[in-house]
Amino acid sequence: MDLKIKEDEVAVFAIGGLGEIGKNMYAIQYQDEIVIVDAGIKFPEDELLGIDYVISDYQYLAEHQNKIKGLFITHGHEDHIGGIPYFLQKVPNVPIYAGPLATALIKGKLEEHGLLESTKMNVLQESDVVTFNNLSVEFFRTTHSIPDTLGIAIHTPQGVIIQTGDYKFDLTPVGNQPGPNLQKMAKLGTDGVLLLLSDSTNAEIPTFSKSERFVGNTIHQIVERIDGRIIFATFASNLYRVSQAVDAAIQNGRKVAVFGRSMEQAIVNGRELGYLDIPDSEILDASEINKLPANKVMLLCTGSQGEPMAALSRIANGTHRQISIQPDDTVIFSSNPIPGNTVSVNHLINALEEAGANVIHGKVNNIHASGHGGQEEQKLMLRLIKPKYFMPIHGEYRMLKIHTELAQLCGVPKENTFIYENGDVLALTQNSARKAGHVPAGDVYVDGNGIGDISSEVIEDRQMLSEEGLVIVVATIDYKKGLVLSGPDILSRGFVYMRESGNLINQAQKHIFHTIKTHLDNDDAVAEDVLKQDIVDNLQEFLYRRTERHPVILPMIISTQV
Amino acid sequence: MDLKIKEDEVAVFAIGGLGEIGKNMYAIQYQDEIVIVDAGIKFPEDELLGIDYVISDYQYLAEHQNKIKGLFITHGHEDHIGGIPYFLQKVPNVPIYAGPLATALIKGKLEEHGLLESTKMNVLQESDVVTFNNLSVEFFRTTHSIPDTLGIAIHTPQGVIIQTGDYKFDLTPVGNQPGPNLQKMAKLGTDGVLLLLSDSTNAEIPTFSKSERFVGNTIHQIVERIDGRIIFATFASNLYRVSQAVDAAIQNGRKVAVFGRSMEQAIVNGRELGYLDIPDSEILDASEINKLPANKVMLLCTGSQGEPMAALSRIANGTHRQISIQPDDTVIFSSNPIPGNTVSVNHLINALEEAGANVIHGKVNNIHASGHGGQEEQKLMLRLIKPKYFMPIHGEYRMLKIHTELAQLCGVPKENTFIYENGDVLALTQNSARKAGHVPAGDVYVDGNGIGDISSEVIEDRQMLSEEGLVIVVATIDYKKGLVLSGPDILSRGFVYMRESGNLINQAQKHIFHTIKTHLDNDDAVAEDVLKQDIVDNLQEFLYRRTERHPVILPMIISTQV
Repeated sequence: MDLKIKEDEVAVFAIGGLGEIGKNMYAIQYQDEIVIVDAGIKFPEDELLGIDYVISDYQYLAEHQNKIKGLFITHGHEDHIGGIPYFLQKVPNVPIYAGPLATALIKGKLEEHGLLESTKMNVLQESDVVTFNNLSVEFFRTTHSIPDTLGIAIHTPQGVIIQTGDYKFDLTPVGNQPGPNLQKMAKLGTDGVLLLLSDSTNAEIPTFSKSERFVGNTIHQIVERIDGRIIFATFASNLYRVSQAVDAAIQNGRKVAVFGRSMEQAIVNGRELGYLDIPDSEILDASEINKLPANKVMLLCTGSQGEPMAALSRIANGTHRQISIQPDDTVIFSSNPIPGNTVSVNHLINALEEAGANVIHGKVNNIHASGHGGQEEQKLMLRLIKPKYFMPIHGEYRMLKIHTELAQLCGVPKENTFIYENGDVLALTQNSARKAGHVPAGDVYVDGNGIGDISSEVIEDRQMLSEEGLVIVVATIDYKKGLVLSGPDILSRGFVYMRESGNLINQAQKHIFHTIKTHLDNDDAVAEDVLKQDIVDNLQEFLYRRTERHPVILPMIISTQV
Repeated sequence: MDLKIKEDEVAVFAIGGLGEIGKNMYAIQYQDEIVIVDAGIKFPEDELLGIDYVISDYQYLAEHQNKIKGLFITHGHEDHIGGIPYFLQKVPNVPIYAGPLATALIKGKLEEHGLLESTKMNVLQESDVVTFNNLSVEFFRTTHSIPDTLGIAIHTPQGVIIQTGDYKFDLTPVGNQPGPNLQKMAKLGTDGVLLLLSDSTNAEIPTFSKSERFVGNTIHQIVERIDGRIIFATFASNLYRVSQAVDAAIQNGRKVAVFGRSMEQAIVNGRELGYLDIPDSEILDASEINKLPANKVMLLCTGSQGEPMAALSRIANGTHRQISIQPDDTVIFSSNPIPGNTVSVNHLINALEEAGANVIHGKVNNIHASGHGGQEEQKLMLRLIKPKYFMPIHGEYRMLKIHTELAQLCGVPKENTFIYENGDVLALTQNSARKAGHVPAGDVYVDGNGIGDISSEVIEDRQMLSEEGLVIVVATIDYKKGLVLSGPDILSRGFVYMRESGNLINQAQKHIFHTIKTHLDNDDAVAEDVLKQDIVDNLQEFLYRRTERHPVILPMIISTQV
């Protein structure tokens, strides 16, 4: 398919990231040039049973891959880079542009998928300008809960389009990092910006987010007063947090041992790129932990979201190879549970406390700060950039809505703000903006190693299975003779307790027998598909009438007609 | 006196505003050119009894008035403009540069003091540049609790010196004002700033101040649900607040009556300058109030700080000519008491409630927002301006200290930050900064119409009088004959209750009689001054020994020796 835009219009659309948190992927197209920003995954919500990730529908981009000039990455979080291997499998040879840390993380992914050698990676510095025929791309430093984050400004013949990436305005970043480049943002604003696409995650929070440095002070205070062993769990990618935890450990005479593959990798990346300054002498091998007194050790690990296979869960459950909880251990969760993870985090905290550990967690202790700016920071971005048009991104609908209201308070006329859905195309000139149709942008599910072989019907089935159970109908039929040789037998799982429902099952059997017999009697050439559908429909209706449930019905016809 | 600076150094000093909130007055001198920023008063704290205002010591500026190129005003609050008439009385003919609202307020003052015709007033727009020989001055929009606020950038041959004035970063100002000019600040930062002088008032508050618009929402909600008459009290100069109160009134079908001279003047100024958009039809004359139902009226008045002569106090006390409290009246305090006024505001609230009114007040109701930025905004200013050197201004010592720490967190080296006192001179070149002596910068008291005729000793006396009371000693002496003809009699006020202290008084009389007699006996030519001092010293010592108090002792010698 082609976009329904005019020759001189710039098209802007998302195939992920609108109406949802995650799976960010945005495209800017002018004539025969497409620039893509980010290619993330979304972690499935509970109702997507058995799905590992959700990625975007790359169909439009695959059809127009000859136009794609590059994939530009704002930062190295999974919801911005996790889709890259799947994208490259579908749309090969797209050059990638990313900052140093994001590059390191992406390379790890490409290697896993055997794509490292075939992919051209370009490491970005903030001052770089990447120029194509009609489009050119420049960058401005932002701050977020991972180092090395960039906002992206795409210069088009119709004006500048800015995608902020995820950001907060951390004005006192950890480790004397330079912080957000206010001057460059203001200069873009002064020169004029056509469209701003801005992170909406914390649009419901009316304040200015706390600096990461503020969390550091709290970590220091907490570590200082603990006598026993400390297990510190946080997001591996938040090297600022990791750095502050390690500093607190060292300053209190503790050496650090690292657990969990992503945390180990993060430490390697962080030290290599200069975000972590940890002398070799301060890092312990796991085997050395028990040689030191409890108050000389900090264990740094992944699993703060309650992930069952991560180091912390295994430690809590007593299934970790090297570490088990001792009395007087203190576990610090320097994180907030992502909404979908609240239950598993609570389980984990219970397990740790039952095993004898003290657990410190929660906002109240100031041991976490969001990586996303609140309303004051969203307003600050709007006021610095002063866009003519505004589209909130990276947020659920209610967040996009509030963010749009903030934009209006900051001087963007209401008719110049656009709450769009994934796939909606915004067509822009320097003086106009209009909706110009839609590109495919449905969710694509990744299950194990399969991409996109799971339809949304499968997901619905899994949901029904989990909620209503399964009924299997087995019958052996001699089509030639028009006879039911055995069955129909009924098996069920998760539907009703069979032994106590003999009556219901008997009636159901009779019901299906009747359905089959009718088919066999009336039609010489019985179409098995039609028969199966009839069994499903009739049984579903019968069971719903009797139980008000909709189990998944699976008919199996064993035919003697070979 | 002259400054102890080198030919090529720029001198920066305050003669008010450092170590205190109020009385702002800053000077920048390069060779034979002086630019002054603000000329405020400070309202006396409780211990300055009977003092109306405190102003700065203008001595240095008076001695160098031929060098003064202009007085530049950041905004129209008393602590930035209140000293102008006194300054001009001492240093005539200094041209004044101020924004439109500050100009209107200053003109009112000049008229009162008969200085209007002799003073050259220049009305500033943000885009103006005022150029002298070596110095030039430009401006950037800020936001504060009064419209029309400017930060001031003074270009010197050694670099740019910025004085922020009072500010918050209100990113959604009332009435679609454009808000702080982030782009201009960032541009100054990009081009390079030598020294930043920045408002420290809220350095102890770790957040980003709420937008004035946020208060407006609360006012609307409150006004909407009130049935009776509303009396709305706030600072007259906060035209944003006034505007929002009037809007809420009109939208709820209420007409507005204005009470208090400064509020009346504010409404005139605000309408003239376009900050208030109130149709004539919505304004009531005081005499018409009682003709309308209670729910059709809002009274807008001064006195939210409990000032005894302001409209609200007189209404509360039943001494107002036109208005008395009715049952079902609601009084809204849209303000916080300035620390020194807490007690009088509490008295006022009690009086209003005793008279039958409901009173809504306090931060908890979100009906006030500070006009000064918290730490996040101070950091934002530091990050936008990126100064080489930093001096916190407008704050007590502890605020200046915190602000200096924030500057260090924002990348200013510790040795480049200066916590100075009033009068301390900072001598700057583009590569150096050093302390270069001191100019006079003591407090000068204004009592009634007298300026500077009250010494700090007088204030100490007033303080002792208020705390320890007064003892008067009267004796009639015939110096010739060396006789005490009558007395010494002792009167006291505020010291001890005389009738119950006969013994103490008797002993004191004997003590003084002995002191006088010793003088008369030992010295032919009795020096009355010496005698009086002896009386004071001896009596003070005696009384302190007996009562542990230090009353003010006033000896009166009536001499028959003519």
